[in-house]
Amino acid sequence: MDYNEVAKVLAESLPYIQKYRGKTIVVKYGGSVMKDEELKRCVINDLVLMKCVGINIVVVHGGGPFISSHLKKLNKKSIFIDGLRYTDDETMDIVQMVLCGKVNKDLVNLIESYGGKSIGLCGIDGAMIEAKKVSSKMDLGRVGEIVNVNTEIINNSIDNGYIPVISSVARGDSGELYNINADTCTFRIAAALKAQNLILLTDVPGVMKDSEDPSTLISELKLKDIPKVYESNIIKGGMIPKVNCCVEAIKCGVKSAHIIDGRVPHCLLVELFSKSGIGTMIS
Amino acid sequence: MDYNEVAKVLAESLPYIQKYRGKTIVVKYGGSVMKDEELKRCVINDLVLMKCVGINIVVVHGGGPFISSHLKKLNKKSIFIDGLRYTDDETMDIVQMVLCGKVNKDLVNLIESYGGKSIGLCGIDGAMIEAKKVSSKMDLGRVGEIVNVNTEIINNSIDNGYIPVISSVARGDSGELYNINADTCTFRIAAALKAQNLILLTDVPGVMKDSEDPSTLISELKLKDIPKVYESNIIKGGMIPKVNCCVEAIKCGVKSAHIIDGRVPHCLLVELFSKSGIGTMIS
Amino acid sequence: MDYNEVAKVLAESLPYIQKYRGKTIVVKYGGSVMKDEELKRCVINDLVLMKCVGINIVVVHGGGPFISSHLKKLNKKSIFIDGLRYTDDETMDIVQMVLCGKVNKDLVNLIESYGGKSIGLCGIDGAMIEAKKVSSKMDLGRVGEIVNVNTEIINNSIDNGYIPVISSVARGDSGELYNINADTCTFRIAAALKAQNLILLTDVPGVMKDSEDPSTLISELKLKDIPKVYESNIIKGGMIPKVNCCVEAIKCGVKSAHIIDGRVPHCLLVELFSKSGIGTMIS
Amino acid sequence: MDYNEVAKVLAESLPYIQKYRGKTIVVKYGGSVMKDEELKRCVINDLVLMKCVGINIVVVHGGGPFISSHLKKLNKKSIFIDGLRYTDDETMDIVQMVLCGKVNKDLVNLIESYGGKSIGLCGIDGAMIEAKKVSSKMDLGRVGEIVNVNTEIINNSIDNGYIPVISSVARGDSGELYNINADTCTFRIAAALKAQNLILLTDVPGVMKDSEDPSTLISELKLKDIPKVYESNIIKGGMIPKVNCCVEAIKCGVKSAHIIDGRVPHCLLVELFSKSGIGTMIS
Amino acid sequence: MDYNEVAKVLAESLPYIQKYRGKTIVVKYGGSVMKDEELKRCVINDLVLMKCVGINIVVVHGGGPFISSHLKKLNKKSIFIDGLRYTDDETMDIVQMVLCGKVNKDLVNLIESYGGKSIGLCGIDGAMIEAKKVSSKMDLGRVGEIVNVNTEIINNSIDNGYIPVISSVARGDSGELYNINADTCTFRIAAALKAQNLILLTDVPGVMKDSEDPSTLISELKLKDIPKVYESNIIKGGMIPKVNCCVEAIKCGVKSAHIIDGRVPHCLLVELFSKSGIGTMIS
Amino acid sequence: MDYNEVAKVLAESLPYIQKYRGKTIVVKYGGSVMKDEELKRCVINDLVLMKCVGINIVVVHGGGPFISSHLKKLNKKSIFIDGLRYTDDETMDIVQMVLCGKVNKDLVNLIESYGGKSIGLCGIDGAMIEAKKVSSKMDLGRVGEIVNVNTEIINNSIDNGYIPVISSVARGDSGELYNINADTCTFRIAAALKAQNLILLTDVPGVMKDSEDPSTLISELKLKDIPKVYESNIIKGGMIPKVNCCVEAIKCGVKSAHIIDGRVPHCLLVELFSKSGIGTMIS
Repeated sequence: MDYNEVAKVLAESLPYIQKYRGKTIVVKYGGSVMKDEELKRCVINDLVLMKCVGINIVVVHGGGPFISSHLKKLNKKSIFIDGLRYTDDETMDIVQMVLCGKVNKDLVNLIESYGGKSIGLCGIDGAMIEAKKVSSKMDLGRVGEIVNVNTEIINNSIDNGYIPVISSVARGDSGELYNINADTCTFRIAAALKAQNLILLTDVPGVMKDSEDPSTLISELKLKDIPKVYESNIIKGGMIPKVNCCVEAIKCGVKSAHIIDGRVPHCLLVELFSKSGIGTMIS
Repeated sequence: MDYNEVAKVLAESLPYIQKYRGKTIVVKYGGSVMKDEELKRCVINDLVLMKCVGINIVVVHGGGPFISSHLKKLNKKSIFIDGLRYTDDETMDIVQMVLCGKVNKDLVNLIESYGGKSIGLCGIDGAMIEAKKVSSKMDLGRVGEIVNVNTEIINNSIDNGYIPVISSVARGDSGELYNINADTCTFRIAAALKAQNLILLTDVPGVMKDSEDPSTLISELKLKDIPKVYESNIIKGGMIPKVNCCVEAIKCGVKSAHIIDGRVPHCLLVELFSKSGIGTMIS
Repeated sequence: MDYNEVAKVLAESLPYIQKYRGKTIVVKYGGSVMKDEELKRCVINDLVLMKCVGINIVVVHGGGPFISSHLKKLNKKSIFIDGLRYTDDETMDIVQMVLCGKVNKDLVNLIESYGGKSIGLCGIDGAMIEAKKVSSKMDLGRVGEIVNVNTEIINNSIDNGYIPVISSVARGDSGELYNINADTCTFRIAAALKAQNLILLTDVPGVMKDSEDPSTLISELKLKDIPKVYESNIIKGGMIPKVNCCVEAIKCGVKSAHIIDGRVPHCLLVELFSKSGIGTMIS
Repeated sequence: MDYNEVAKVLAESLPYIQKYRGKTIVVKYGGSVMKDEELKRCVINDLVLMKCVGINIVVVHGGGPFISSHLKKLNKKSIFIDGLRYTDDETMDIVQMVLCGKVNKDLVNLIESYGGKSIGLCGIDGAMIEAKKVSSKMDLGRVGEIVNVNTEIINNSIDNGYIPVISSVARGDSGELYNINADTCTFRIAAALKAQNLILLTDVPGVMKDSEDPSTLISELKLKDIPKVYESNIIKGGMIPKVNCCVEAIKCGVKSAHIIDGRVPHCLLVELFSKSGIGTMIS
Repeated sequence: MDYNEVAKVLAESLPYIQKYRGKTIVVKYGGSVMKDEELKRCVINDLVLMKCVGINIVVVHGGGPFISSHLKKLNKKSIFIDGLRYTDDETMDIVQMVLCGKVNKDLVNLIESYGGKSIGLCGIDGAMIEAKKVSSKMDLGRVGEIVNVNTEIINNSIDNGYIPVISSVARGDSGELYNINADTCTFRIAAALKAQNLILLTDVPGVMKDSEDPSTLISELKLKDIPKVYESNIIKGGMIPKVNCCVEAIKCGVKSAHIIDGRVPHCLLVELFSKSGIGTMIS
Repeated sequence: MDYNEVAKVLAESLPYIQKYRGKTIVVKYGGSVMKDEELKRCVINDLVLMKCVGINIVVVHGGGPFISSHLKKLNKKSIFIDGLRYTDDETMDIVQMVLCGKVNKDLVNLIESYGGKSIGLCGIDGAMIEAKKVSSKMDLGRVGEIVNVNTEIINNSIDNGYIPVISSVARGDSGELYNINADTCTFRIAAALKAQNLILLTDVPGVMKDSEDPSTLISELKLKDIPKVYESNIIKGGMIPKVNCCVEAIKCGVKSAHIIDGRVPHCLLVELFSKSGIGTMIS
């Protein structure tokens, strides 16, 4: 591409930068971008770029596959009940070590490598995420649901120029720890921060009428159309909690929530800095 | 261009934004970009973009052709002595009106149209540019040379998020006004602000070995090589004061000075946000 | 006058300084003080003094006679419809040049000469005055009416210790420029700033029962008495828009509005720093 | 006096206000202005005025006559040795009560009555004045000399808009209290504050060649001329410590020190706000 | 006591420090702690300690016995009407001198000796306490009742790290001074500061069912129980105004008011930093 | 213990609080206090207390035993060379997980439980600890030595009221991670912060002349006496690096370094808040 075209592209990004500058965007980091080294580097580059042009970026992550893999090394089976990992105390220790110690700090490390300033946090730091045992028919051990989010430590980080990276681990009233679903964690943090946008990085193109056919992608969903869409059975399987998450975020005041395909290189820039976007936007 | 390429271009701009973010760049606005509506819009778009990603932009301008044209309407001839406009009191009034009233505020207006915040100033405001009558063999009337630059009002503007646009009109000890060469004005302001960069927008590709052949463009000149270059007679005519201006700026602590071709669309972005650049950089 | 008397006068100014200190006063600069060099110097001296003792001074100005005079030099006639200058595009250019380039910066220059800090602005800077085409029976060209006043740039100037001097030129939604009546401009700015006082410098002693007889001056008018006064036909001709201006300002929260005689030396000090005052106060 | 003259006087005060604005002036309050109700009101009015136009005023006072008078009521004799009050512990209690409790707070009260904000302090508050027993041939009891001045509490008061009024009472290392000469106290505080001016209010016109003949007043004394003046025996009696005080202040960086006649109404304004002044300025 | 026990005691103070840290406590200093040198030093040590661990301490004091004693030296009788000192002008002078000059500054001095930073104020400073003549059947001279408390000067002192010590002397509209009951003064200041606690140091263990028998001490009184207690005649004599004072403070938003026995060494620490407390708490 | 004694102990802590208030103390958390639940709670209580009274606490930790134990679960042997753990990439992952994910966040959690505010960091966050491969005869894998400490993120945490808890993991130029000796880490952080004190919590009473006999404890060592002590072979085994660490800290400007016995309950309070202290102080 010659330099004229490059300049033109950059020049045309102005209205998008103006739109998001000074706003807060909470990104759920997950799926392929966690494992594919190339994609990971694309996403990190873009997060640092967005921070650099004045957008307040907050990253939230889980890390199921890494937990399962480490449990396996310890000859411990991963048990799931209704899609949630049964978390006994020993498993909770592993969740904590893998998420807060490994996945989290590796992300921080990569952001620093791209010239960004980052800080790795979890729900324990500054008593950020208060949780209690999730109520469910079957005992899930240390699986928790969020009671409250204290944003002080996140806001301090943003104000000082850092990208906070947050593991989905929370603490209860008596200091006991909980394993929290990362999607839920993301929307609760977005809501507490009164964020402008919530972005879920997934491994599918977005909400599709026919989940096998990417050409049936629904680019935009209005809150009021959600019930109809549910009725029509378009939203299925793993997409249901993700859409719920977006819907809840919107109800809590987040302006728009995006489910996008992390497998597309630079998916964040494409979604936010171009006219059409590539995933499904719920607003 | 498809969205993947767009995203790639944006993503690759990260190191350049990181390089200039928080730095001050003083741009001499002049030549074709003042008259060609399309080029003007390109430059303004890019200035607003650069401000938007965190670069402190300061614009300095003259406006010779507009002065001449207005004098003509008043049936007053433009007289030049050694390339400097002979400026009697009546002409000084016109200089003031055209530069501070018309060229300046029109630029401010255009920046606002692109979503930027701007403020139109001249050397009188906040007693910013102190000058005295230029010493020369022949009397040049109100042509002045700069004695001192007070940066307070410029720094206030930058701190409050504005792009200051500055006319090359100055004031003397007793409140008398002076017409100042805009290139000189630019380098003095850049020096006073301890700017990172100085950029002169011109109507030539830069310093060329053969001024008729753009392929002989010299991309980079080191300060220590300047004397040799002068000896070799490569720098001629109107290019001499421009190169001098850059040299003085570097001597005063500006990191690099650029002479670039304002006729290239988005020339600022190409020069600063790509590997090669398009004009001559003196450092 | 011996030094004892001087000291007594200064000493007695204390309650007046205490009354206005920290308050904002918007002064419409116009009439004789614009042309008579001696009166001009008196007013500027007093504005700088008032700023110096802690009063936030904002100056607004038009400049009809200077516009007419410059148009004449260009062999262009001044056309007035219902007292408003018909402003075609070419005239608008002249309005802009004369007001923003000449009258404005000359005032700033004089304030600096008296040791004050000043900045010359117009409605374009920081998108300060938003306007639209005035609705009228006959087309008036680029005569505008104010839609909104953004005070950010004025407040920044005040906070940094400057006296902002503002030309009555505004910008429309699409960046088109408008010629605004300076009295209206003054009261709209006073209202937007929630100013304490509005002062109109004129060439008459104030509102008089018999406009030929200065001894019939009305020193104070209460808002509630205005309708009666209008009915009695005391307010006539050019005084009508001035009184309307004051009335609107009061309605918008300005504490008092003063119509005073700019031909009296140091009229501002006399009006504000003595018991009786010299013009008409509307409150 | 008619309003034109009043306005003229006010207008002409501008350069003086500009000269002292933002500067610190330490005033030794003493002599007739302490006792004559009318003069006292004049001085207080002027102090409040000066504060009001932006000068940082600090008042220091002693109160010998009041101490003597109270001692007399208690049937206790005032004993002076070499001009210094012999201060036994019981006397020290009275000094403290009269100065810090009565003279000081009465001054504060009067300043408040004139619309100023004031705070009454002594060398004990914030450990402001550290002293030790004065070394002298004969025991003087609790007469002290200053070891150090901590300006924190004075600067806090100034920054918050108060006029600090300071009694010349100090504390020693072990919390013992000392009676300090008020003139010395004034110059030490002026020096510690890096004040612009020091003013001693006295009951004489200033330094006079013939102390009986006011027409022989010396308006200005340069530091370098002081030795000559001492040799010529012009400075005698009570004037010696006052001139020494001024000389020490100048040596410590105070710009000018003034000995003026407090019996002249509004003497402070006359001295600072007129061309000639009325007392002796040492610089 | 060995070091393990010491450490244990310190360690156990954590919850109490956390409870009061950042809160404001107003202490009425009076009774034995004013006269007994040992007790005085205990209280001062504890006030400095409390300030040091982050509690905002404000001290209010009267000084009846010292006033009486000084009046006696002047051969002036102390006259009391209904428990209030009849205060003619001459007495008011003595009140002012003794309280503001002696008691106040001695307290400040002692706090400084313990390494605290302190400032001695009275109701005159910063026009802090506005009062008027108390309305009563018999003329009481200059006995006043509080009209308003301006907390600016107190808050400034706290913000700058000082312990303000305040004498119960107030000023009227015309600058006339008033003698104020110190208990009332304390609760009005506590109310104006929206203090967390009010503590009255007295010479009795607190409110007792049988005023002769300390074992009948009532540790806690709820606001709602006060009427019943009054009816039962438990509160008698000098305790009535003290309880009233506490009740009023609670009604004005103070969280709890404590009447404690100043004769117990370190009574403040015992009351606030231990489970039971030693006096009567009204809440 | 009765309340009088409690109060006396608290009162006597004043000079110690005054001594350390506003100062920075870096504590190496290690040894028994990591494992014994009771001792751990004592230390955490004391850290929160010290923070609460205004001391800036920074905690640094390693966690060798926890690493070894987790490696054992994974059937991986711990290999030590010259007392340093051979750290291959797989081990580095475990070090990172155990230190940053488990030990670190558990400490943070406990501090929050005691009402403190805490944040868990490692050398990766904010690029805090820059390291390179340690130079040694035998390859130690990812064992690093510190090149630089960036204190920004630590100072931000302190300024916002948090106790930063820091794991001894660092990052290299290319983002590779390093296992750092925690004692070294502590002294480097203390030096970079220009801390007042460095405290190493160990499992011995301090430096003893006869390491078997606690009664031979050396309470204080001056820097100048260290060489002599080394010569005398008093310092042996694991004590050598600890003393070196203290010595280096002192050389870098830390005022005093303490080696104390973490097995003594509330050892921190005993060491800092009592006259004698319990360990060895090097200064």
